[in-house]
Amino acid sequence: MNDFIFHNPDKVYFGKNQIENLPKEILSIGNKVLLVYGGGSIKKNGLYQKITGLLKDSGIQIFELSGVEPNPRHTTANKGAEICKAEKIDVVLAVGGGSVIDCSKGIAAAAVAKSGDVWELVSKGVWVTEALPVIAVLTNAATGSEMDAWAVISNMETNEKIGLGGSALIPKAAFENPEYSYSLSAYQTACGAFDIFNHVLDNYYLAGDKTFDLVLEFQEAVMRAVVKWTPVALKEPENYEARANLMWASSMALNTVLDGGTVHGCACHMMEHELSAYYDITHGHGLAIVTPRWLAYILNENTAPAIYRLGEKVFGVEKGLDNMEGARLAIDAVWNFCFNTLGLKPNLTDLGIGKENFEKMAQHACFGGEISGPKNLTPKDVEAIYNMCL
Amino acid sequence: MNDFIFHNPDKVYFGKNQIENLPKEILSIGNKVLLVYGGGSIKKNGLYQKITGLLKDSGIQIFELSGVEPNPRHTTANKGAEICKAEKIDVVLAVGGGSVIDCSKGIAAAAVAKSGDVWELVSKGVWVTEALPVIAVLTNAATGSEMDAWAVISNMETNEKIGLGGSALIPKAAFENPEYSYSLSAYQTACGAFDIFNHVLDNYYLAGDKTFDLVLEFQEAVMRAVVKWTPVALKEPENYEARANLMWASSMALNTVLDGGTVHGCACHMMEHELSAYYDITHGHGLAIVTPRWLAYILNENTAPAIYRLGEKVFGVEKGLDNMEGARLAIDAVWNFCFNTLGLKPNLTDLGIGKENFEKMAQHACFGGEISGPKNLTPKDVEAIYNMCL
Repeated sequence: MNDFIFHNPDKVYFGKNQIENLPKEILSIGNKVLLVYGGGSIKKNGLYQKITGLLKDSGIQIFELSGVEPNPRHTTANKGAEICKAEKIDVVLAVGGGSVIDCSKGIAAAAVAKSGDVWELVSKGVWVTEALPVIAVLTNAATGSEMDAWAVISNMETNEKIGLGGSALIPKAAFENPEYSYSLSAYQTACGAFDIFNHVLDNYYLAGDKTFDLVLEFQEAVMRAVVKWTPVALKEPENYEARANLMWASSMALNTVLDGGTVHGCACHMMEHELSAYYDITHGHGLAIVTPRWLAYILNENTAPAIYRLGEKVFGVEKGLDNMEGARLAIDAVWNFCFNTLGLKPNLTDLGIGKENFEKMAQHACFGGEISGPKNLTPKDVEAIYNMCL
Repeated sequence: MNDFIFHNPDKVYFGKNQIENLPKEILSIGNKVLLVYGGGSIKKNGLYQKITGLLKDSGIQIFELSGVEPNPRHTTANKGAEICKAEKIDVVLAVGGGSVIDCSKGIAAAAVAKSGDVWELVSKGVWVTEALPVIAVLTNAATGSEMDAWAVISNMETNEKIGLGGSALIPKAAFENPEYSYSLSAYQTACGAFDIFNHVLDNYYLAGDKTFDLVLEFQEAVMRAVVKWTPVALKEPENYEARANLMWASSMALNTVLDGGTVHGCACHMMEHELSAYYDITHGHGLAIVTPRWLAYILNENTAPAIYRLGEKVFGVEKGLDNMEGARLAIDAVWNFCFNTLGLKPNLTDLGIGKENFEKMAQHACFGGEISGPKNLTPKDVEAIYNMCL
């Protein structure tokens, strides 16, 4: 069993009646915020008006950065950092889903960096230990960014989408009201749900016993929650219980409660980031296309018991089968969840993606080495998996 | 589903090679510590020498309070608080099990209180928001105090044992090395394990659906871990994996990861605290005596499904039975775990306890009202349960 450090000081306000606590949380740090959001859906559902009203009533001065992209650009983060420096912002307030929160983290890090350039931090792999405080108001159950130490930033000039990590990137507070996710489309809901699912699966310890029993069982419980509640949310977008279960699953997936000595893999995430970087597709959809193929590709006598266990514990695959047979049924169940339950299109060609960049993408996904996991992946392996996705 | 706040900023260093980080954690706050410990077992196993050596090498000034009792007294906490005030202590460093950590929290709170008296805080039910920082080095998997916001303090003059809570009582950091628990006796191991088990069971949502599926499943996973690994630790006291699973289960049981909208009950804890307050018995043993009787007492058509679920999920009771029958088998399984697997004696009379104080104890356990839970308990109910324990 590996040694580990567990530390997540994020303060989560969960539920229907928590947003009133937002001004207090901001004022405990300062009174100048940069309000960061996306395409304006928060104006349609009234959240923008609610929040700006609360802040103004408390004497908090608001600056704004809107238009954050679904795969947030380094240029947008740098624009936010400039505002922070010029206006001496105290708190970066993200109101949105994972992209908005990730962009806000990029802003918060760049705002205190000498260069003011988030891409310099990203490309050098800097572990961020100083940043402006970020507070998140979550509107989509998906990335876990509301409770984790990571941001994923895209550079569309170089076709790169890379994670930026650091203890200073864990939000100071997060506000999670499941009602804020009622207005998500079925497609956004499905993509977000699969992102949660894969955050767990990518780190599910597929080939050993290096962690606690209870961590494996926690992981399975979170995946089961996604499998159970996503169809409910798709059918009844305003089902509070379904949205609440998905939102808490999103936070639990990456707040390191599911860690505890595990070795992180992130194979599907590494492969998907290339797809988004080259083709600007929705992350969760790319993950859904890659994941069942990855499982099929890594299936062997060593990995079969754990893949079968996934099937049994999460999808109810029958007990007592041969490991290889059980694992194949598990992969079928993941496939069925992605493309029937969630209704996502199964092939890269459905998104207009051909094989023309696979070799470059595979090289880059491996960062000059291999992607570690239950079976390590070379660029040749990654290219083969991309080809399975066509 | 209830709204809730999740916030646990405790930084846990878990594993074999973490204690070297202790001076750094202390020095991030100050350089004067009050080292608090119990009867001296840490001198026998070398932990005292290790820690004082590390601290001295880092220029940290050490004051000491030893002899903390298994049910820590308010007088001991007050003595520690006096030292803190006189010596301007920066950090209270608890090295021991739950009693030592609880006492240290009492010290930390009293040291900044005007009166300097922890019992004033306890008896007034003050929610502690200011205290000296506590750092814990854990030697026993049991109370969860290393990661929670609570301390239980005993006043032997008034036969009272009461919880003191507050956000300021969450330790700043906790060091959890499973090896530090190798030297525990079988009795201490068994009592600690049952304390963990009951922390979950007391809050297991026995009569409804007010929380997330994944919270219930997390709770079951923690109880299963205790049921699986305690016999291993009893048989092989130096089995790292067993000790590690128990230690992490201890922290997980009360760090609020298992909450998320649940309603806390604490029925068995409330009833046991009276036993310890009157007879100074070991808390986990008292809990083991009370718990199966409590389950039998509250069993009815409403509570049966959840008690049966406990049996099925945690002890492998057969599926598909009638709820009442399944629940009875579940209670048998809890009984068997307490008195056969753990080897604890089953009756209060085994500990020399008779019925002479039951009426007073039952009154006090209810604090003038009822103990809430899956079935609320009046003083008459509590007295009946005590009588079942004779």
